Amino acid sequence: MIYVTKRVEFSASHRLFNPLFDENKNNEIFDKCNNINGHGHNYVLDVTVAGIPDPETGYVIDLKLLKKIINEELIVYVDHKHLNFDVDFLEGIIPTAEHLAVLFWQKLEIKIKNGKLHKIVIYETANSFVEYYGEPIEIKVYN
Amino acid sequence: MIYVTKRVEFSASHRLFNPLFDENKNNEIFDKCNNINGHGHNYVLDVTVAGIPDPETGYVIDLKLLKKIINEELIVYVDHKHLNFDVDFLEGIIPTAEHLAVLFWQKLEIKIKNGKLHKIVIYETANSFVEYYGEPIEIKVYN
Amino acid sequence: MIYVTKRVEFSASHRLFNPLFDENKNNEIFDKCNNINGHGHNYVLDVTVAGIPDPETGYVIDLKLLKKIINEELIVYVDHKHLNFDVDFLEGIIPTAEHLAVLFWQKLEIKIKNGKLHKIVIYETANSFVEYYGEPIEIKVYN
Amino acid sequence: MIYVTKRVEFSASHRLFNPLFDENKNNEIFDKCNNINGHGHNYVLDVTVAGIPDPETGYVIDLKLLKKIINEELIVYVDHKHLNFDVDFLEGIIPTAEHLAVLFWQKLEIKIKNGKLHKIVIYETANSFVEYYGEPIEIKVYN
Amino acid sequence: MIYVTKRVEFSASHRLFNPLFDENKNNEIFDKCNNINGHGHNYVLDVTVAGIPDPETGYVIDLKLLKKIINEELIVYVDHKHLNFDVDFLEGIIPTAEHLAVLFWQKLEIKIKNGKLHKIVIYETANSFVEYYGEPIEIKVYN
Amino acid sequence: MIYVTKRVEFSASHRLFNPLFDENKNNEIFDKCNNINGHGHNYVLDVTVAGIPDPETGYVIDLKLLKKIINEELIVYVDHKHLNFDVDFLEGIIPTAEHLAVLFWQKLEIKIKNGKLHKIVIYETANSFVEYYGEPIEIKVYN
Repeated sequence: MIYVTKRVEFSASHRLFNPLFDENKNNEIFDKCNNINGHGHNYVLDVTVAGIPDPETGYVIDLKLLKKIINEELIVYVDHKHLNFDVDFLEGIIPTAEHLAVLFWQKLEIKIKNGKLHKIVIYETANSFVEYYGEPIEIKVYN
Repeated sequence: MIYVTKRVEFSASHRLFNPLFDENKNNEIFDKCNNINGHGHNYVLDVTVAGIPDPETGYVIDLKLLKKIINEELIVYVDHKHLNFDVDFLEGIIPTAEHLAVLFWQKLEIKIKNGKLHKIVIYETANSFVEYYGEPIEIKVYN
Repeated sequence: MIYVTKRVEFSASHRLFNPLFDENKNNEIFDKCNNINGHGHNYVLDVTVAGIPDPETGYVIDLKLLKKIINEELIVYVDHKHLNFDVDFLEGIIPTAEHLAVLFWQKLEIKIKNGKLHKIVIYETANSFVEYYGEPIEIKVYN
Repeated sequence: MIYVTKRVEFSASHRLFNPLFDENKNNEIFDKCNNINGHGHNYVLDVTVAGIPDPETGYVIDLKLLKKIINEELIVYVDHKHLNFDVDFLEGIIPTAEHLAVLFWQKLEIKIKNGKLHKIVIYETANSFVEYYGEPIEIKVYN
Repeated sequence: MIYVTKRVEFSASHRLFNPLFDENKNNEIFDKCNNINGHGHNYVLDVTVAGIPDPETGYVIDLKLLKKIINEELIVYVDHKHLNFDVDFLEGIIPTAEHLAVLFWQKLEIKIKNGKLHKIVIYETANSFVEYYGEPIEIKVYN
Repeated sequence: MIYVTKRVEFSASHRLFNPLFDENKNNEIFDKCNNINGHGHNYVLDVTVAGIPDPETGYVIDLKLLKKIINEELIVYVDHKHLNFDVDFLEGIIPTAEHLAVLFWQKLEIKIKNGKLHKIVIYETANSFVEYYGEPIEIKVYN
């Protein structure tokens, strides 16, 4: 197997809080990430596909195609958006990087037909990031 | 002269629009930066002070002190905030990086007593940034 | 004045040699950059425009517009190209980063109408780069 | 096990095309990577060796030695070269990053005697890279 | 499982030598790393914790907490220190990055109660780094 | 004029203190930089030369030559060294980045004959750096 990765970026806002907690508990747990008007990041997203290179092209997956899939399935929905309000598939989710990774996986996996989605990495800042390999994780939806 | 720089980061939301424009014009000019719920960035801020090193310390300005000033005057007000709603000294300002540079200058200049504030650089993303050297620029306040 | 910069990248090949030198002299001066089949780089290009922010938008120049100009005037001509063979406006020029900076300036300057082109930086690698502020420099064309 | 990595860089040209395809098909599949005169990159190469640190030195493998091996086996052959024309061990290969990874592995593996070659990463650009762990992959040679 | 990582930096000196070797052998093996007065690095440390996100917070481990643990267990002891002389838990150890990884693991593992310590990466420079996943490795202590 | 820059790195130790201050004052002013056994950094050094490109080569100065000068005049003396003890031309100097910039300038300026030394930048860390343009600055030597 060879693992090929496309890196893309998007800029978005979010607010971290649990609607079932009171204000004090949200502040205690989420601290400044609980700012009512939100805050934002330049997110970096690495999408890795595993496979064998096609002998006729030398590609596991054409990275131009992978970039097109990432743009069409994710970036148009999350770039320059507020993740708590503007994104249908994130509705009711606490938008931590962990949760974004799981939900981004669901959007990408079915669209990748050359090779197999192997890993998603999301950098919230240069010093904080999460990695996800697609093991099923249930995510609570708050209404 | 020697120029010493401290780099810091902060994460914030903003929305770019002019309240005197109608929705169409705001969309035409500010495009996705006009998203009503805002979007966000990991801003990088470089603050440069010019001066002669003190012969007793070898410092133009102790960068620990410069960092303390930047934190106390700016970062506590803008980090994990929405720049349109949460920051008194940005009230009514269109929060472009250009405007942030000018208003950050005003907050820092009077606090720097070792050397002289020389330059402010603000990176909105790794590929978009502004530099400002303190020449007076009038900024319109919208109420 | 405020200085706003857009950074873009392009990937290209080049070969450095002077057609009036013999092979020995070209090897002595240009060393491995004289490889007959060329070699390549991921060039990084920073374009800086100086001006006063428009009070109605807070922009010196909309960086989306600046990016469009850079793409239309330069990137479509040089990205994924061989700079010695594929680019009309570089014909007969020794394609050092110094020369690219001067010729890129000529292409961009007349197209920038908000603010004034102030600086071009070209990184050939992360450790080698040139800066140019538009002072007239004559460049020899070899036919 | 501990995994130690040396990162090196090289600048090279390549052209992606399949000699059995006609021009239209090559353009359709490889797009601008099929530019006849080639294009280039600053490639970044990470070589990872796995092993137990020697109790007398604390090294899995002395990274000065690893760097020497990478230079002697790879860098002198590919740096400032055109990968389609100048490199014996790449002759007839479509020089995608996937294929480079496999062929670089073959050159390095037999030379590493402290620890065991574990992974090769090749960045074609900062946003496109491949990883390879040495599983046997057959690569088609076009003559 | 999701893997979350916090990156921190510290600046330290070290000297690499084996007290049982004579000067010639130390110079031969450790070369300029054996400089008697030491030399230094800006080390970068990535600490990765594996786990399932808590449905009430969306966090595997709150990265503010992970950063606090790293600071209290490691950074206060090693930042702006000489690793051969100033750090109790490194006494008698040859302070290679490999050894630091193992000893840092021992300090962190028992303190992490949300999720499980999964990986430590230590960059000595941008081009030289080690990864460690916690497999038991015996490290020789020289007195 | 065109400005060409070569970036190099070196790893070194230093300790910041003034021998005329008592221990309390040194701790108060230099804080953890006053650690008796020193600490270290991966310094990054940018050397910029200004000039007109030679029409026969397209170079202001061949960056291979500039790198050779930087290595021979500076890097062999400071890389993997302790700046307080091991470097003749820094003897008695408080080794702040400001002072290094001035003394590095003196070593480089006389050796650069193509173009003119224009600027030196020294990064002590990614977030702390100094710039120097060669204006005469007297530096106190402590014996």
